[in-house]
Amino acid sequence: MRLSVDKEQLLKALNNAGKAIAPKSPLPLLANFKVELNEKGLEVTGSNNDITIRTTVPYMIGDKQIITNTVPGSTLINAHLLGDIVRKMEGNVISLDVIDNAIAKVDDGHSSFKLNCANAEEYPDIDLEPSGTDLTMDCQQLEDLVAQSAFAASTKEQRPILTALNLEAGENELIATATDSARLARKSVHIDSDVRFRANVPARTLIDITHLMEGSAAVTFYVSDKKVLFTFDNTVVSSRLISGDYPVTRSIIPQNFNYFLQVNSQELLNAMDRVAVLSSGKESVVKISMREDHVEVSARSDSNGSANEPIQTFQFSGERLEVSFNSLFVIDAIKALKSEDVTICFQAEMRPFVVKNPKDDSVIELITPMRTY
Amino acid sequence: MRLSVDKEQLLKALNNAGKAIAPKSPLPLLANFKVELNEKGLEVTGSNNDITIRTTVPYMIGDKQIITNTVPGSTLINAHLLGDIVRKMEGNVISLDVIDNAIAKVDDGHSSFKLNCANAEEYPDIDLEPSGTDLTMDCQQLEDLVAQSAFAASTKEQRPILTALNLEAGENELIATATDSARLARKSVHIDSDVRFRANVPARTLIDITHLMEGSAAVTFYVSDKKVLFTFDNTVVSSRLISGDYPVTRSIIPQNFNYFLQVNSQELLNAMDRVAVLSSGKESVVKISMREDHVEVSARSDSNGSANEPIQTFQFSGERLEVSFNSLFVIDAIKALKSEDVTICFQAEMRPFVVKNPKDDSVIELITPMRTY
Repeated sequence: MRLSVDKEQLLKALNNAGKAIAPKSPLPLLANFKVELNEKGLEVTGSNNDITIRTTVPYMIGDKQIITNTVPGSTLINAHLLGDIVRKMEGNVISLDVIDNAIAKVDDGHSSFKLNCANAEEYPDIDLEPSGTDLTMDCQQLEDLVAQSAFAASTKEQRPILTALNLEAGENELIATATDSARLARKSVHIDSDVRFRANVPARTLIDITHLMEGSAAVTFYVSDKKVLFTFDNTVVSSRLISGDYPVTRSIIPQNFNYFLQVNSQELLNAMDRVAVLSSGKESVVKISMREDHVEVSARSDSNGSANEPIQTFQFSGERLEVSFNSLFVIDAIKALKSEDVTICFQAEMRPFVVKNPKDDSVIELITPMRTY
Repeated sequence: MRLSVDKEQLLKALNNAGKAIAPKSPLPLLANFKVELNEKGLEVTGSNNDITIRTTVPYMIGDKQIITNTVPGSTLINAHLLGDIVRKMEGNVISLDVIDNAIAKVDDGHSSFKLNCANAEEYPDIDLEPSGTDLTMDCQQLEDLVAQSAFAASTKEQRPILTALNLEAGENELIATATDSARLARKSVHIDSDVRFRANVPARTLIDITHLMEGSAAVTFYVSDKKVLFTFDNTVVSSRLISGDYPVTRSIIPQNFNYFLQVNSQELLNAMDRVAVLSSGKESVVKISMREDHVEVSARSDSNGSANEPIQTFQFSGERLEVSFNSLFVIDAIKALKSEDVTICFQAEMRPFVVKNPKDDSVIELITPMRTY
């Protein structure tokens, strides 16, 4: 295998595929990139078993020759080293020359590296061929879907199903739901397709994919029984699905509320951030006290003291109410809504409440209160 | 105790004194600031026993009233909390009101915090009065002195004396020396004083002090038997000295060399940074191979491979020579010299070599080679 390749395009592929490389791979072979030069171009594949990413550097981009001087072939090269080396090189064209399937010579015409490499046939056989139900959408739509929901997924492995973002397509709608059981986020987008599927994709994977997609226009995904495949530009991402049934969440979301608070998002964020300095424990518990003519947030810690701050711009309708909650959850929810104002709808002191963008019904952020001090 | 104080000035004092607060203080009381309003202003003191920092917020700066509305007194307030709160507050004037020596009310006219506080008399009695031999110099001079030497001090506690920067004043010269036994850095500056003293100041303390001094014009230090005091602007820093005799280093620095290499600093830095990707172990061993018409750096790792890169702009005089070294040490030394070109003077393959700024004899960076592979 041999080729000369545009440095910038090679680096992009290494950066993309590198997102799948685990800091400490359980399988030593997966510390490598699989690098293959074939009729499609230079395929760079990285994997950690759960997620596999392949980006292909094409021979041509527009009129520009990207790859020249080729002898097809494939090899395995340490991902961390190859990425570091290409990143630090100063030349615009990198040549890669695999000698006797044992040494990969990487050269930019100035610095010269000889890297030990391994036989590509030892790499696990990972199927990246599209199959199953497919759906194509704007990358921006998928980005919104993920940004407004995936943060609410659990990061703990006790109940693996809760680390998923639940995707449900049907009736021209794609709904994403995430919950860690103390909060829930749901976002729906309209789709121009009548496909129906359900899939539990690791939330972390979807967040990574939205970062990889930056600058791409459209993404197609293929859902099958055990895995989902995303394709955009020259990149394919395959992810396992999380097995098991996703909890039924539709019935959890309350429909009727007794109290409505509308506030400026930034003012509430700042006030909670300040008073939470005095909340105790990891949960950053903050209390919001509301009556028609006064709203304030407060926090208290037995060892340190207490804090309170009035909210200056608000509309509140309902009886007097006090609700305590994990302020980090409310901060996440408000940030995800990306709205100048938010409406918080309460049923009662100890019942789940909803944080909404008053102008957008496609997102619902549900949060369970905490026992007040 | 009560006062209203300009937020910006208060925050500056809290940030300065906060530099002395240990993340986990061995003495719980030292997790607090001592805050005292007296005839000098508002004194904020932070300490971790090894280093104590006090910044005084004055009543007036120029024509501007900084502190108003005063009742003198003192108290102890959790440093981390007070710093966080004042940093997050939006008002320009902060009022501080200590009630019954138990609660400190902190208020910016909008947010209101009540912090548990403790009796100032419980704070350790730390002497911040100037005494001993004194020397005044430009802050910039002290900054250069520290920046070009202190990095070479040891960070390991096995030989505490090597964690010091050794300061030696005499004959209108102040010399700073640091060594971790594998490398040594020495910088001298001219002083307008005929004082004589020797002091082993923790190198870390001096680095912290140069950061605190930013924007100040002159610094005075007072050296006594067990401690050193630095004063600049409204800040006093007291540090313990490290006891024991500093190793005699003068005889270590070679005077005669057989090989001289002059190179562009940035080119050598970049080349070493690249090839070091393939050095093995923590030491980042790089070899430099020199002959009159060719100089190159290289590195090798048994498990990963090898790298080499020629240096394009150089002057070398001497026989053919190869020297291996910890490239991180050479990178530190070159960066400290802040010079476009550097001269490296060698005696022999396994003898210490010196990295110098060809235009400045006040700094010497000495490095011990490593066994070559």
